[in-house]
Amino acid sequence: MDTRVKHGAGVSVGRMEDQALLRGTARFVDDVPVTAPLHACFVRSPHAHARILSIDTSMAADLPGVVGIYSAADLRGDVTTLRMPLGFPSPTMPKNTTPFVLAPDEVSFVGEALAVVVAESRYLAEDAAQMVMVDYDILPAVSDCRAAVEPGSPTVRTEIESNVLQQYQLAYGDCDSVFTAGHTIVADDFWVHRGCAHSMEGRGVLAVPDLSSDTLMVWSSTQLAHELHAAIAQMLGQPEDKLRVITPDVGGGFGAKFMIYPEEVAIPAVARKLRRPVKWVEDRREHFTSAIQERDQYWHAEMAVDAAGKIVGLRGSMIHDHGAYTPQGTNVAYNAASSLTGPYVVPNFLLDVQVAHTNKVPVATIRGAGYPQANFVMERLLDQAALVLGLDRADLRQRNLIPPEKIPYTKPLKSRAGLPLVVDSGNFPALQAALLERIDYAGFQARQDAARARGVYLGIGIANSVKPTGRGPFETAKVRVLPSGKITVYTGALAMGQGLKTTLAQICAGHFGVSIDAIDVIAGDTSFVGYGMGGFASRQTIMAGSAVHQASIDVVAKARAVAASMLKQPESEMSVQDGYVTGAEGKSLSLAQIALAMKGAPGYSLPYASDPGLEATSHFHCDDQTYAGASHGCEVEVDPMTGAITLTRYVAVQDSGNLINPQVAEGQVHGGVVHGIGNALFEFMAYDESAQPVSTTFAEYLLPTAPELPHIDVLFCNFPSPLNPLGVKGIGETATIPVASAIIGAVEHALSDIGVRIAESPLGPVRLLELIDATGHDAHLR
Amino acid sequence: MDTRVKHGAGVSVGRMEDQALLRGTARFVDDVPVTAPLHACFVRSPHAHARILSIDTSMAADLPGVVGIYSAADLRGDVTTLRMPLGFPSPTMPKNTTPFVLAPDEVSFVGEALAVVVAESRYLAEDAAQMVMVDYDILPAVSDCRAAVEPGSPTVRTEIESNVLQQYQLAYGDCDSVFTAGHTIVADDFWVHRGCAHSMEGRGVLAVPDLSSDTLMVWSSTQLAHELHAAIAQMLGQPEDKLRVITPDVGGGFGAKFMIYPEEVAIPAVARKLRRPVKWVEDRREHFTSAIQERDQYWHAEMAVDAAGKIVGLRGSMIHDHGAYTPQGTNVAYNAASSLTGPYVVPNFLLDVQVAHTNKVPVATIRGAGYPQANFVMERLLDQAALVLGLDRADLRQRNLIPPEKIPYTKPLKSRAGLPLVVDSGNFPALQAALLERIDYAGFQARQDAARARGVYLGIGIANSVKPTGRGPFETAKVRVLPSGKITVYTGALAMGQGLKTTLAQICAGHFGVSIDAIDVIAGDTSFVGYGMGGFASRQTIMAGSAVHQASIDVVAKARAVAASMLKQPESEMSVQDGYVTGAEGKSLSLAQIALAMKGAPGYSLPYASDPGLEATSHFHCDDQTYAGASHGCEVEVDPMTGAITLTRYVAVQDSGNLINPQVAEGQVHGGVVHGIGNALFEFMAYDESAQPVSTTFAEYLLPTAPELPHIDVLFCNFPSPLNPLGVKGIGETATIPVASAIIGAVEHALSDIGVRIAESPLGPVRLLELIDATGHDAHLR
Repeated sequence: MDTRVKHGAGVSVGRMEDQALLRGTARFVDDVPVTAPLHACFVRSPHAHARILSIDTSMAADLPGVVGIYSAADLRGDVTTLRMPLGFPSPTMPKNTTPFVLAPDEVSFVGEALAVVVAESRYLAEDAAQMVMVDYDILPAVSDCRAAVEPGSPTVRTEIESNVLQQYQLAYGDCDSVFTAGHTIVADDFWVHRGCAHSMEGRGVLAVPDLSSDTLMVWSSTQLAHELHAAIAQMLGQPEDKLRVITPDVGGGFGAKFMIYPEEVAIPAVARKLRRPVKWVEDRREHFTSAIQERDQYWHAEMAVDAAGKIVGLRGSMIHDHGAYTPQGTNVAYNAASSLTGPYVVPNFLLDVQVAHTNKVPVATIRGAGYPQANFVMERLLDQAALVLGLDRADLRQRNLIPPEKIPYTKPLKSRAGLPLVVDSGNFPALQAALLERIDYAGFQARQDAARARGVYLGIGIANSVKPTGRGPFETAKVRVLPSGKITVYTGALAMGQGLKTTLAQICAGHFGVSIDAIDVIAGDTSFVGYGMGGFASRQTIMAGSAVHQASIDVVAKARAVAASMLKQPESEMSVQDGYVTGAEGKSLSLAQIALAMKGAPGYSLPYASDPGLEATSHFHCDDQTYAGASHGCEVEVDPMTGAITLTRYVAVQDSGNLINPQVAEGQVHGGVVHGIGNALFEFMAYDESAQPVSTTFAEYLLPTAPELPHIDVLFCNFPSPLNPLGVKGIGETATIPVASAIIGAVEHALSDIGVRIAESPLGPVRLLELIDATGHDAHLR
Repeated sequence: MDTRVKHGAGVSVGRMEDQALLRGTARFVDDVPVTAPLHACFVRSPHAHARILSIDTSMAADLPGVVGIYSAADLRGDVTTLRMPLGFPSPTMPKNTTPFVLAPDEVSFVGEALAVVVAESRYLAEDAAQMVMVDYDILPAVSDCRAAVEPGSPTVRTEIESNVLQQYQLAYGDCDSVFTAGHTIVADDFWVHRGCAHSMEGRGVLAVPDLSSDTLMVWSSTQLAHELHAAIAQMLGQPEDKLRVITPDVGGGFGAKFMIYPEEVAIPAVARKLRRPVKWVEDRREHFTSAIQERDQYWHAEMAVDAAGKIVGLRGSMIHDHGAYTPQGTNVAYNAASSLTGPYVVPNFLLDVQVAHTNKVPVATIRGAGYPQANFVMERLLDQAALVLGLDRADLRQRNLIPPEKIPYTKPLKSRAGLPLVVDSGNFPALQAALLERIDYAGFQARQDAARARGVYLGIGIANSVKPTGRGPFETAKVRVLPSGKITVYTGALAMGQGLKTTLAQICAGHFGVSIDAIDVIAGDTSFVGYGMGGFASRQTIMAGSAVHQASIDVVAKARAVAASMLKQPESEMSVQDGYVTGAEGKSLSLAQIALAMKGAPGYSLPYASDPGLEATSHFHCDDQTYAGASHGCEVEVDPMTGAITLTRYVAVQDSGNLINPQVAEGQVHGGVVHGIGNALFEFMAYDESAQPVSTTFAEYLLPTAPELPHIDVLFCNFPSPLNPLGVKGIGETATIPVASAIIGAVEHALSDIGVRIAESPLGPVRLLELIDATGHDAHLR
């Protein structure tokens, strides 16, 4: 990038999204102006597992204003199958594992939809939904994944034989030998519990059958416009070109919108049936009981460390709570299992994995997608090993980090697609060193002593992580100069609040020598880009950014060539700046003039022999991923009397490659850390023993808010990726992964005198007091 | 084309358009389903020339159901300019020559719109339009273009200084010398009068502001979807990507829809203003007074022929009646002037041209676009020369046709864009020879004698023509295999009744080895194809057909490559047939499977390293044109007592290059000949001396109908063009060009005993009787 002029890459220009968001003129699904839409409300199961004996809609249907009530049976003719497609197609996955558009005869988690009511208003639809009488035969429910895998456990759905969806071993080297060779061994049982991805805007779908153009228009608050397009086409048996999916402003995704939901098929199906617009916007309680959730793994893990403080082996087993269905795949479990070693060298490895169904909301990817769980297990083991070996925690880590001279470093495991896992770039010791300096690790002992002298329990924790980011296989960007002179970027990437439009506009603006005001970005509209992937896996700047970069280069080259031809001057002397292409003698043409000329006119030659238009499309391809590292550290004060944990300091050192907009990047890190703080200390999706959810409001399910948060000190320590022309890496997830590890490590460290061992997250005050109680030191403290 | 399997090129498969058209399920603009559209009616001038003193809408506005009434003043803020864009942009054209969206202060032809009424129904809108009170100051009007160019003539618009828009000379060689060298000279004054292009469906515009997607959707019965898109964007100051133009079924164009009309801007502007759908569908009277018209030229021409019967010079002058404005350009006059020599070798040439404004409907291109007028002048001169020289008419022509060995033959004139006029292919003597044989020219004398013995005046006439077809600069075709397996062709070409979809589907089907049922064709929808030209100048099979051909080849190649990769078999052994790609061992994949795999899935590698999707786009470029020849002949019976002319025989020999669908091609020839018969004998757009139109219904303006038509015998004698991969040439216009020449020649021939000279077209019975009267032979006859 030698074009860092004006609003080009590398500059912290203000986000183009913010005016609308701050002034309340953004347009979310619920704001899309449609004449006389109908409103939908889903009838959802109150039972974790039950057979549907009958559905009586007669009373509800009599309510004035109710337009229609549809159960699965009523939609059979409107969809090609009642079973949703599998998000990650796999030949080995059973056919009967995906959810239903509407459950036909059995419900398998509380919140599963079995009917949809359509009415003239949402109020009416809600009232009518309450009046739909469903007769259930309640079946045994499985709440705990550890029980689910026991022989004799009832199955979560009567159609399956066993709750164990997948069972496999990942291994390399020879663990048996090293674990019997007399090395120091630490071991523990870990639990990373289930949470949600509470974006400010929940899900929402609006389907409008446009009879005039024979097009079904679907707006959805999704991370996957093109996948949704394909799924609706397939489920409704509609040709792809009679369907348009648009994502308006999306109020956050965080992974929970990285799948195709039953509601996203049911609403279009009903709208098409009624030939009227139908809208459904998720309420918060629905988000708790029908949007996907994550984390939720039980691990037993052991680490063998030799006398030199080198890890020689890592082994264990993990049970992954998968929930009732498989909407997407089992990548969360695989990600966790295969990433356990993180940025460390581990010569021998063995892990047994069980993916277990329970009668709970399905589990799929949320920010970090399995990596936070693995990181928690690994970093907790390292802390324990340091304690046992009497080594400093940072020192032990330092001895085991992948050495920079070995990068690119091929990990001994394969990706779920069978590809090698290659750490393409980075310097993990440098990241940790930067962290230790920034957080004044050396000076901590003095701070801790001073605090303890005041009766305050202060602790410090650190954690290292790495995540492959920028999943392929491709992303699309079309850069087009409209004849009006406006430069527009169309992309299959998806803007859901992270400043994507600003980022892409900057990349484009740099090439054209203009400010981002000259650029429009249209993302997530399938009518403008035929093929796209969307927003997930911290991929968008890498994949879409690189595509915008390449397409911009191509358009600038074309503009120079056309201008040279029109001005009859050498192409080599043409430069593009401020919307003009200027030649040697100061003769210039505006981009608008060039675009208009290249549009072509009937019977006239184009001014330059090429395809028409002043535009270029790039599908940036990359199957490899960029590895983005992070070293986080924090200090906490713990009150052993109340269990209160206060974060007093947080430092995030990030390797995010080159930054397009440092301020936006820092914002992403802030968000990621806060998400991690939620995972560490607050967000606990609770189910009772009958798999009944008991935290379905923000009164029961706690999110971190401003008073709970420390200043988050972000330091970029960037090692550009060689895998893309921008040298960028992903950010969104990487700042979440090590957070819980660092925080819990700090808490344990603060209470080291008491000897509390913490192997779970999230950790609330009540649970911390229980752990303190269990040490027997509680009496002494209170 | 080695792929003439199933429904490939060269097969007369039934048209895919016909089911809908014959069953009444076709969708024209008026059929597009829109909820609660408003209806527009235009207030049009009853005067040929007048100043608008005031417009009083108060009474009309009070009519219940009237939503709005807008004059030019009311739309000033809604359009970037009141002046329409020039269809063929030209730096030399005056800025003030295009029509107005609505006339602001002066009207210059009867039918010019000055206000638009929008109401809840068309009835109300029509009633209200009648109640708009316009106070006019009537100005002198110019009806006859010969008077228009006289010094001192009033100007047709007060803003111009002279009615002569253009005046130029086309010349080469040395006419002065050859016309004074003692050769035989024939000379006459010719008149080809004005007619319309009466498609079954008139014009129509529907504009729907889709607030949900911020898109203005415009349906129009046009030949130029993409040009209309660009014009509306420019006139409304809207970004191109917030605008979608769709052409539904179009009930014929014939050139009258090859321009952007004021109504096509006014209706979108009003719809956007009102934020409601607004529709206007032209009625037949409006088509007579506001759709463009053509022909209408006065010529004086002289031909010098040497003793060997070789043309040595051609000279003259022409006044072209251009009407009141220049919506498009002056190509009709230029086409006529530059094509006068037709398929003949003319060594010396000089022509003075005047393009003259009159207070009549603007003149623009209608089927043939100037070529029929020039052909009429040339072929009449040849008939006269033969008579004077005592040579057979066919023999004289034969001596002067461009010899096949000189093809490619560069004509001495340039195109209006300054490019050489190169006859790329053909064999004109062969066409004429085929005609003479088919019509039994040699046996005609016996037939004529036998008829005369029965008291019947039988005549034979022949005419040769050639027209460059397939105007560029490009046309777009995207061929896409949807994941559902359907093959869809998207094109910027425009289907307006000539079987385009069938033709393109056949070209595509041949490559895929499927029937046309497996193929959808979407034409004239700007949301699917970014750049396109549309339907005009007999270009569509040449330009769009070649693009489909190329894109199909590319998609087939990609399907083979992907299948080879997926099946792990050599690409060279892959064959595509019946929707499957099959390898050596009979292993196969459906196109649907390949398309679905190449759509890509999040995080998975594409099965073949290339851009995603199973599609290809081709912009077939060609600035050169294919020259399509025709030799037509006919026999007529003329009743000199009544002036009745009866066509008894018609033979059309056509060189149309390779035929994609011979039956469709023959249908096009039939239509072209009938259009020519209308021009020759029936269609006469009459204005009185004050430029008041006096033929504004089908009672006054006669169209040929079935009883007036002979069997039309079509013989293709094809010489493929080297300019495109299909070897095709245009058809639509080529069959119209020589028709009037042949018919009038036959009429004159039938009456050769009487010595009637006919130098005008159309020729009705009353006028023929006048011409007979003028010979003085009439008494003898009656």
